[in-house]
Amino acid sequence: MKSLDSLFRPRSIAILGASHKPGKVGFELVKNIVEAGFQGRIYPINPKGGEILGYKVYRTLHEVEDDIDLLLIALPTKYILESIEEAGKKGVKSAVIYAAGFAEIGREDLQNELVKLVKKYGIRVIGPNCAGIIYWGSRLNASFSPVSRDGFLGLLSQSGAMTAVISEYLEFKELGLRLLVSYGNRIDVKDHEIIEYFNYSDDIRTFMIYIEGLDEGDGRRLYKAIRNSLKPIVIFKTGRGESGSRAAYSHTAALAGRYNVFRDIMFQAGAYVVDEYYELVDVAEALSIVTPPRGKEVAIVTNSGGPAVTATDKLEELGISLHTTPPDIVDKLDFLQPYMNKGNPIDLTADGNEDYYRKVLETLLENRWPDIIYVIHVPPTFINPIKIAEAVRDVYLEHNRKKTLIPLFLGRDRWRAYKVIREAGLPTPLTHISAAKTIHALIRRVKI
Amino acid sequence: MKSLDSLFRPRSIAILGASHKPGKVGFELVKNIVEAGFQGRIYPINPKGGEILGYKVYRTLHEVEDDIDLLLIALPTKYILESIEEAGKKGVKSAVIYAAGFAEIGREDLQNELVKLVKKYGIRVIGPNCAGIIYWGSRLNASFSPVSRDGFLGLLSQSGAMTAVISEYLEFKELGLRLLVSYGNRIDVKDHEIIEYFNYSDDIRTFMIYIEGLDEGDGRRLYKAIRNSLKPIVIFKTGRGESGSRAAYSHTAALAGRYNVFRDIMFQAGAYVVDEYYELVDVAEALSIVTPPRGKEVAIVTNSGGPAVTATDKLEELGISLHTTPPDIVDKLDFLQPYMNKGNPIDLTADGNEDYYRKVLETLLENRWPDIIYVIHVPPTFINPIKIAEAVRDVYLEHNRKKTLIPLFLGRDRWRAYKVIREAGLPTPLTHISAAKTIHALIRRVKI
Repeated sequence: MKSLDSLFRPRSIAILGASHKPGKVGFELVKNIVEAGFQGRIYPINPKGGEILGYKVYRTLHEVEDDIDLLLIALPTKYILESIEEAGKKGVKSAVIYAAGFAEIGREDLQNELVKLVKKYGIRVIGPNCAGIIYWGSRLNASFSPVSRDGFLGLLSQSGAMTAVISEYLEFKELGLRLLVSYGNRIDVKDHEIIEYFNYSDDIRTFMIYIEGLDEGDGRRLYKAIRNSLKPIVIFKTGRGESGSRAAYSHTAALAGRYNVFRDIMFQAGAYVVDEYYELVDVAEALSIVTPPRGKEVAIVTNSGGPAVTATDKLEELGISLHTTPPDIVDKLDFLQPYMNKGNPIDLTADGNEDYYRKVLETLLENRWPDIIYVIHVPPTFINPIKIAEAVRDVYLEHNRKKTLIPLFLGRDRWRAYKVIREAGLPTPLTHISAAKTIHALIRRVKI
Repeated sequence: MKSLDSLFRPRSIAILGASHKPGKVGFELVKNIVEAGFQGRIYPINPKGGEILGYKVYRTLHEVEDDIDLLLIALPTKYILESIEEAGKKGVKSAVIYAAGFAEIGREDLQNELVKLVKKYGIRVIGPNCAGIIYWGSRLNASFSPVSRDGFLGLLSQSGAMTAVISEYLEFKELGLRLLVSYGNRIDVKDHEIIEYFNYSDDIRTFMIYIEGLDEGDGRRLYKAIRNSLKPIVIFKTGRGESGSRAAYSHTAALAGRYNVFRDIMFQAGAYVVDEYYELVDVAEALSIVTPPRGKEVAIVTNSGGPAVTATDKLEELGISLHTTPPDIVDKLDFLQPYMNKGNPIDLTADGNEDYYRKVLETLLENRWPDIIYVIHVPPTFINPIKIAEAVRDVYLEHNRKKTLIPLFLGRDRWRAYKVIREAGLPTPLTHISAAKTIHALIRRVKI
C-alpha cells in the first residue's frame, strides 16, 4: 500500500468529534462522507455515543476494533495534539486536520509540536487550517467545500477560500472536480507527492494548483513532479510580494523578480502559469479535453472584426504570430463572398451564418493547414448563435475532432451556445485572454 | 444649435429604406425608433409608400415637407453615395450609414468619394459599417445593438461586435447604457467631439471607449478632449500589433512600444486604460458610482487569506502598497478575536460574520484612516453571503457613503450578494484584477 492510499483510497474512516447536531462541523463531515456513497467502514466518534445517520457512534477512537486508514479530526485547535497522539497509538495511517490556529496566526510553536508528533507516528496529514479532501474515485468527500459535482479536474489549493472561488466558477460552467485537496498549512503531504500519486489515475485529466508559497526544498521536488507528470498542470501563484513580512512590501522589484523566477521554472518544467482564477479553470478545462495540436500554426475564423483584432493582440502578446492563409487554402475558400476576408483572421463578416462557418471549418479540418483553429463568434441581431454553435459542434464531430479547435463565443446567449459547444468536447473560455493562454499552453506542449 | 444636436437630439428622423417586413433592417430601425418612445417627427421612406407601424411612408426623401435633422440610411452599399447626395440637396443635417463595404474591405476609393460628399454638404455622419447610435436622453434608438436598458454609462466603439460583447456583460450585471455610439469606419464624427459634446450632460457619468486605431491628428484632439472631460474615461485599446498590414506582425516589439506610448499618453490625459472587455465595464461602473477617495491609503478587510493575498499582489503590480494599520486604529479594533489579524489586510478569518464586518467597517468609516476600503468576502459553508452583503450595504448607507468602498464578493451566491451590494450604490467587480484596476484608477484621480 502506498502511503497516500490511506488518504485517498481508505478502507475505513473515523470521524473524531462527530456530532448529532446538523450544522455542526462534526455532523456535516459524517453527512458528506455518507452522502458521497463511501463504500468502506465509517466510525463516528463522540463520548456521548448513540447513533448518527444510522451509524453507531463510538465513545473513543480506541473503542473501534478495526484498523483506521483515515481519521477526520473535527475538533477545536486545543484538542489537536492529543488527538494525533491518540491516533498514533492506535496506528491510524492518515488524518485530515481542519482546525486553524497554528503557524498562520503566529503559533509556530504549536505547529512545530504538531509536526514532531506527526513524524513520530508516521501519520500522513492534510492540514491543519484546511477545507479537506474530495476524491470521487473513492466516493470520498471529507471536505466542507461546496464542490459536489464529479468531473475530470484535480485542484490542489493552499487556500480554502480559493477553492470556494474556483468552485463557484466551475459550477457556473457545469464543470466538476474529480479531486480536491485543500491543504492549508501543508505540514506533511505536499503538492509533488499528490501529483506523483495520481500520475496513473486516468480519471484526473489536468491538475490546477493554487499556491502562495513553497517550503524550503519543495520547489525542486515540485519541479521534478511536474516534469514527470503525464497530465497537464496549470498553476495560479499568488503571494508574489511575499507579504507576511511587512518589510517585504518595500522591495517589490526584487520580489517580483522572485515570482518571475518561479514562473519561468514552472514553465520550463512544463506547467502553465496563469494570473486569475477563471484563467486557471478555462485553461485546465481546455487542456483536459481538446485534441492536442500537431504543430503551431493558428488560424482565426471570425464573423466580427473587433473581437478578431483583440484575439490577434492577445496571441501576439504571448509571442504567437498569425501567418497568412496559404494560397492553396485561399483557393479552397472560393465559396466565400468577395467582401469576406480569406486572410488570417478569416473574417466572414456579419453575414457569416452557420453554412459559412461549417464550410470554412470543413476546409480547415480537411487540409494540412492550420494546426489550431480559433473560432470566434459574436452574434449580430439577425443571427442565432445557437445555430452557429450547432454547426461548429456537428462539423467538428463529423471530422472526429482531428484538429485542435478553440471556440470563443461572446455576446448575446453565449452561455447557451457554449452548452451546445460542450457537447463536442470543446472548451468554453470566458475571455480573449483565456483563449489566448489556452493556445499558448497547447503550443508549448507541441514537440517538434 | 451645435452640430451634433442633429445626431443626438434630433427633432425629426427619416429612415431611408424603411421596410414593411419585420426582420429586415429597414423595418427594425423604424421599430426601434418608435418603441424607444422618440418624441420628434418620424418619416419612413420607401418607393412603395403605404404605412409602417402607423406611420405614413413617403416615396422619396424630397416628398417629406419638413427639415430632417437625422437620416438613417438602411440601404445597401451601392446606394449610399446617391443617398448622401440626395440628403445633401435636401439639407439633411446628419446621417447614420450602417452598410459595410468601404475601406474595411479595401474599397478606400469608395470611402474617399463618400467622405468628399459628406464634407461638400457638411452632413455630420456616423458610420459607415456601424451598428448606429442610442441616446436615451432623447429616447433615441437608431441602432441594431441589443442594448436596450437605460443607464449611466456611455460607450463609444469602433467595432459593432464589441458593443455586443460589452452589452452581454452589462446585461448580466443589470447595467445599462445612456449613450451608445458604434461608429465603425468613423469617417466624420470622432471620439473627441462626442466627449466634448456630452461634457455637461450629467446623465452620462463615465465614458467607455473601445478603440482599434486613431486617424492622423486625432490623437492630439482626443488627448485634449480627455484632459478637459468632466467625466472619467476608460479605454480598451486593441489593434496593438497594428494588424491590417501583414508585415506589421513581424515587428512586434516596435509596435508594442507604440501601444505603450498610446497608453501612457492616455493615462497622462487622465483616462484609464484596461485590457479586457469586462475590465472596461467593471472599472467604468465603479468610477461612475463610488465616492471618490480623499487620499491614497487602502485597507483590505477580508474573511479569507488566499483572496486577500491575491488582492495584495494585484495592487502591488499596479504600484499600490498597503501600509500597516495605524496603532490608534488597531486599538479601536480590540473587539476582534485574538486570532483575527488587525494588520492590513484586516483578516476576520472564516469566523468573520456580519457583526464583525459591520463593526470593522464602522471603525474604518468613522476614523481618519484609510481612504479606500477594499472589502473581500468568500463565504465558508456556514456563512450566508447575503447577510454579509446586507451588513456592508447598511453600514455604508448609515455612514452616508463617506469613504470609498470597493467590494469583491466571490464564491457561492456572489451575484445574489452583489444585487444587495448594488443597493448601496457600490460596484460589483468580476475579478481581483478589476477591483485592483478600479482602485488604481481612483487613486490616479486623487489630487494631493
